[in-house]
Amino acid sequence: MNDAAVLARLQELGLELPPAPVPVAAYVPVVVAGSLAFVAGQVPMADGRVEHPGHLGVDVSIGDGAAAAARAAMQALSALRAALGSFDRLLRIVQVTVFVASAPDFIEHPKVANGASERLIEVFGDDGKHARAAVGMSSLPLGASVEVQMIAEIARP
Amino acid sequence: MNDAAVLARLQELGLELPPAPVPVAAYVPVVVAGSLAFVAGQVPMADGRVEHPGHLGVDVSIGDGAAAAARAAMQALSALRAALGSFDRLLRIVQVTVFVASAPDFIEHPKVANGASERLIEVFGDDGKHARAAVGMSSLPLGASVEVQMIAEIARP
Amino acid sequence: MNDAAVLARLQELGLELPPAPVPVAAYVPVVVAGSLAFVAGQVPMADGRVEHPGHLGVDVSIGDGAAAAARAAMQALSALRAALGSFDRLLRIVQVTVFVASAPDFIEHPKVANGASERLIEVFGDDGKHARAAVGMSSLPLGASVEVQMIAEIARP
Repeated sequence: MNDAAVLARLQELGLELPPAPVPVAAYVPVVVAGSLAFVAGQVPMADGRVEHPGHLGVDVSIGDGAAAAARAAMQALSALRAALGSFDRLLRIVQVTVFVASAPDFIEHPKVANGASERLIEVFGDDGKHARAAVGMSSLPLGASVEVQMIAEIARP
Repeated sequence: MNDAAVLARLQELGLELPPAPVPVAAYVPVVVAGSLAFVAGQVPMADGRVEHPGHLGVDVSIGDGAAAAARAAMQALSALRAALGSFDRLLRIVQVTVFVASAPDFIEHPKVANGASERLIEVFGDDGKHARAAVGMSSLPLGASVEVQMIAEIARP
Repeated sequence: MNDAAVLARLQELGLELPPAPVPVAAYVPVVVAGSLAFVAGQVPMADGRVEHPGHLGVDVSIGDGAAAAARAAMQALSALRAALGSFDRLLRIVQVTVFVASAPDFIEHPKVANGASERLIEVFGDDGKHARAAVGMSSLPLGASVEVQMIAEIARP
């Protein structure tokens, strides 16, 4: 991809790349192995707080869950760009696993996960299309309603 | 693998490849990156309905959960064949994650996951053997009892 | 990595590599595909019993959960070494997914997962740093509190 074109597309969509996730002691935001980049699980954060905490089917609406998923996906993109230096080496999104904190009787995980998937396609077009799994969790870190794990394909240096 | 041989083996086992999962707007059934093919999470469907919905340890038996897992694995194979054009380029199954909708006190996830694992080995022999994780979920899309996520190794074109 | 150096480092840390997980009928402990090694999900075992069974936020402390995660990570390393013949071909740990059996109101999954992450860094230094996801499960096989799924990068033979 072309870094400047992606940044222009984000601006056109009115989207801002969130701050890149900070590496913590025990793990790192992105590991590159060959032509794959593995992004650490992203919990949607804004201003140091979890966005839309809670459980789908309990106290988080599908719309808010989808917004949380979209935010987490943007954080994953920010992590990728920070690790790769730019979007130039990014070829496509490969796999996205959307973990959704859910009540046992919740069944609309795909609608929540679409928040992430549709955002990726808005930004990257066909190169944003990915193999996806959406699943329901008992709970997530910091009480988040959504966590997004991503694998991308990159050009070797 | 040899496409005709796999199809013959399926027939010998009395198994039919389910219809290939249809690409939806927001994601695709399979993404190929280098020598790996990533298959989207498969929820067992038949005639437009989820097979064996519910939770293990509540209202789905281990036998029915294993059947659901086997069905989901077959859908993943169908998705792979549709994406690759045939089984010719398929080298082996690499990783299978079996998400099982479960009561908190359910502990027999491996028996449910064996439905998928044993089906893959029936069809492909040693090339069907994979690294597996089986885990218990709060809930799954459409109320499914099982979702199967798969990575396969393929020959480069 | 250098096999002898890793074994010496383990000894220095007072750590023993657990017995390698035994291949079971339906799946295998490790699958190598190109430069990636996929390790099957590891549930912490000692003397044939699950270590620290239960749920975080119910009957397992964060310290015990972290110990369980560290044990599962060591089993994954043992599986890798058994599959590769030694640690010589191991380049780095790439992705670690830590599944934590949790109450719906548990939010400290990262502290549990740190048990695995910190162990990997103790043993391998920077090469142990990985992209991580930590998520909360309804239940896990055998009543385990933690299951660890790992992908490593290896040198091609």
